[in-house]
Amino acid sequence: MNAYEKMTQAERAAELKKLQVEFEALCGRNLSLNMARGKPGSKQLDLSTEMLTIVKEASDCKIDGIDARNYGELAGLPSARKLFAEILGVTPEQCFIGGSASLQLMYDVIAKAFTHGLPHSPRPWAREDKIKWLCPAPGYDRHFNITKSFGMELIPIEMLPTGPDMDKVEELVKDPTVKGIWCVPKYSNPDGIVYSDETVRRFAALKPAAPDFTIMWDNAYCVHEFEGDFVPFPDILAMCAEQGRPDMAFEFASTSKITFPGAGISVLATSLANMDWYKGLATFQIISYDKLNQLRHVRFLQDKAHTIAFMKKHAEVLAPKFRCVLETLDREIAPLGLAKWQTPKGGYFVSVYTLPGLATRTWELCKKAGVTMTKAGATYPGGKDPQDSNLRIAPSYPELDELQQAIEIFCVCLKLAALEKLCA
Amino acid sequence: MNAYEKMTQAERAAELKKLQVEFEALCGRNLSLNMARGKPGSKQLDLSTEMLTIVKEASDCKIDGIDARNYGELAGLPSARKLFAEILGVTPEQCFIGGSASLQLMYDVIAKAFTHGLPHSPRPWAREDKIKWLCPAPGYDRHFNITKSFGMELIPIEMLPTGPDMDKVEELVKDPTVKGIWCVPKYSNPDGIVYSDETVRRFAALKPAAPDFTIMWDNAYCVHEFEGDFVPFPDILAMCAEQGRPDMAFEFASTSKITFPGAGISVLATSLANMDWYKGLATFQIISYDKLNQLRHVRFLQDKAHTIAFMKKHAEVLAPKFRCVLETLDREIAPLGLAKWQTPKGGYFVSVYTLPGLATRTWELCKKAGVTMTKAGATYPGGKDPQDSNLRIAPSYPELDELQQAIEIFCVCLKLAALEKLCA
Repeated sequence: MNAYEKMTQAERAAELKKLQVEFEALCGRNLSLNMARGKPGSKQLDLSTEMLTIVKEASDCKIDGIDARNYGELAGLPSARKLFAEILGVTPEQCFIGGSASLQLMYDVIAKAFTHGLPHSPRPWAREDKIKWLCPAPGYDRHFNITKSFGMELIPIEMLPTGPDMDKVEELVKDPTVKGIWCVPKYSNPDGIVYSDETVRRFAALKPAAPDFTIMWDNAYCVHEFEGDFVPFPDILAMCAEQGRPDMAFEFASTSKITFPGAGISVLATSLANMDWYKGLATFQIISYDKLNQLRHVRFLQDKAHTIAFMKKHAEVLAPKFRCVLETLDREIAPLGLAKWQTPKGGYFVSVYTLPGLATRTWELCKKAGVTMTKAGATYPGGKDPQDSNLRIAPSYPELDELQQAIEIFCVCLKLAALEKLCA
Repeated sequence: MNAYEKMTQAERAAELKKLQVEFEALCGRNLSLNMARGKPGSKQLDLSTEMLTIVKEASDCKIDGIDARNYGELAGLPSARKLFAEILGVTPEQCFIGGSASLQLMYDVIAKAFTHGLPHSPRPWAREDKIKWLCPAPGYDRHFNITKSFGMELIPIEMLPTGPDMDKVEELVKDPTVKGIWCVPKYSNPDGIVYSDETVRRFAALKPAAPDFTIMWDNAYCVHEFEGDFVPFPDILAMCAEQGRPDMAFEFASTSKITFPGAGISVLATSLANMDWYKGLATFQIISYDKLNQLRHVRFLQDKAHTIAFMKKHAEVLAPKFRCVLETLDREIAPLGLAKWQTPKGGYFVSVYTLPGLATRTWELCKKAGVTMTKAGATYPGGKDPQDSNLRIAPSYPELDELQQAIEIFCVCLKLAALEKLCA
């Protein structure tokens, strides 16, 4: 029983009245606060200012015997492939460098599966009658939307503290129309869960019925610790190879939350056979992604050790923001028992699970009070949270004082939603 | 009759002997010269060095009320859309800004037509039994390869001095399986032909049987004059709208041959209805292309007038190279009657038509002598030149002294190929 349920009806009515007054006062302040997107704040962007001018002269543009200004190098500068290879624990030959959004590379793999088929596809996916796709949920709406936009049926998979429910995954991949799964294995979006070693092992050991079943391994937060040191993480590609399905996974990462979200570089890492397939189609599509920006990143980030050291500067900015959110929730919500949440050590989100049926109303109230949040339900396939419970809080973009206001307003709105429901 | 045909057999044998000796001497020099790709030379790349550091500080990154470093603006910075709109004579709302390769945007339109269908498509193209595509030839191999990679049947259309043979185009579009055509309307690749006003009018007035027939209007050389002043060119989008088929054309351009081929920006311009369709799908694919690079281009190129003035600097580098090629051909080949060619005033190529049956052999001999050229046939759909006649010379990349050697070697090889054939 939560605190409000323990109250008498009169106490609840009084508390509701009090919160309504508080809420009206907040609305009157005409605030505009945003906790919606995992968008770095300006202090984080300023950390990479030096990169803007790190390639200054014509003579700076040569690397690996290549003039980065000119055409060529489909898979990207060798040095950029090496940088990402070291960060992900794979080989440079397994890496293809993309533009400012790894999302584009993910979309491209799915699009190519549709138009041409993956190496193990019996036929292009466009010729399949029905395709199902596994979606650990809550998860990243943009992932879900890619597969939805191609008309697939999305199947939610419950997230456990160890990662996706692997019993369920192992069961569902026996269906040959199940063609793949989205994963954010480290600091999952939104829960901030790091998949356990056991979960990763079970992923690599999957024996799906579909020969072209594909694990979309979005390692978006591979070096994105904000509390504590860098946490090493297993290489899914090598593990799939050991288990005899070397081509089952495509891994992705980017510098969007390392340097500039609007001007980063990204990587697709996969088996050499998949790489040959991908390059064989990409050669019709592009000469290369922006190589000068690859060069800037190579000069600025240098190597894995330097990148991890650099991420500590982000952590200095981010950690106080996460603490602000978590401490406020601990103080305002925990004692009332209206919600629970993870305490992530990396990634970009705090994932709040309200009591069932409160998420949409809390989101609406926040909106009225000038606090923009990711829409309730957005973290579930098709935008439908069966419990109407999950809300994703993104603390990175607002300044600390604004964030404090925003999370306090969130707490007021959640309390109000809970009381409204009880008093209805 | 060409000069060699007029010779006696003995004269021909003597000339062949002389050329063989000359050719062997050239081979012995172990040269490595490249006239293959329309790749700007290093002097051209150096013209944009200032752009490398034009965005220096965090405060430089704000434009149009947007922080170009962060997420957002799917269609690109308003200022970048405005810049291309002015250059192409369209509106900013008609422009979507892409990455370093307009090829990627072209591929993407075709890929989306396959997976989702164009606005007027009865069904996604992946569900069509057969798709035919018109290819003015000689043309750009990368264009042909995109449509070929999607399994389309490529139909060559003869290039006339006024552009593609419009009688043929008008006839063929009566076939509902003919879904589109590639065009390089200004300084066509490789002939350097500027489509006549009449040709452009006839394009806009096409009434194809396929409701989703698409003109892929690759305005790659829109401001790329190297002899004489900027030549204004009609806006195909407005003309299609006037003719009642506003959604029939997608136009493309890029800064690949204005600033840096390996780090430019590109544009897709089309009707507002097509733009809504494109953005509606692109929103699943990307947050935005690199906005800092868009910002660099806006600050560096400024506007149409400044861009055209800047192109004069490219012309200063390119014009002597084209003159070198054309003068050598005039001196060495014209008197013998072994080939003919256009005299382009813009673009990147000299397109040489040898007597039938000499192109492949000339290409082979050049290769032996250390001169890399675009493969004979590459300028035709499927790599098959029915006359084995066309060779594309790209004068931009080598330095002038190297180019002089390369084109002289080309002339020796062409002569040798002609004599070999006559003496065989």
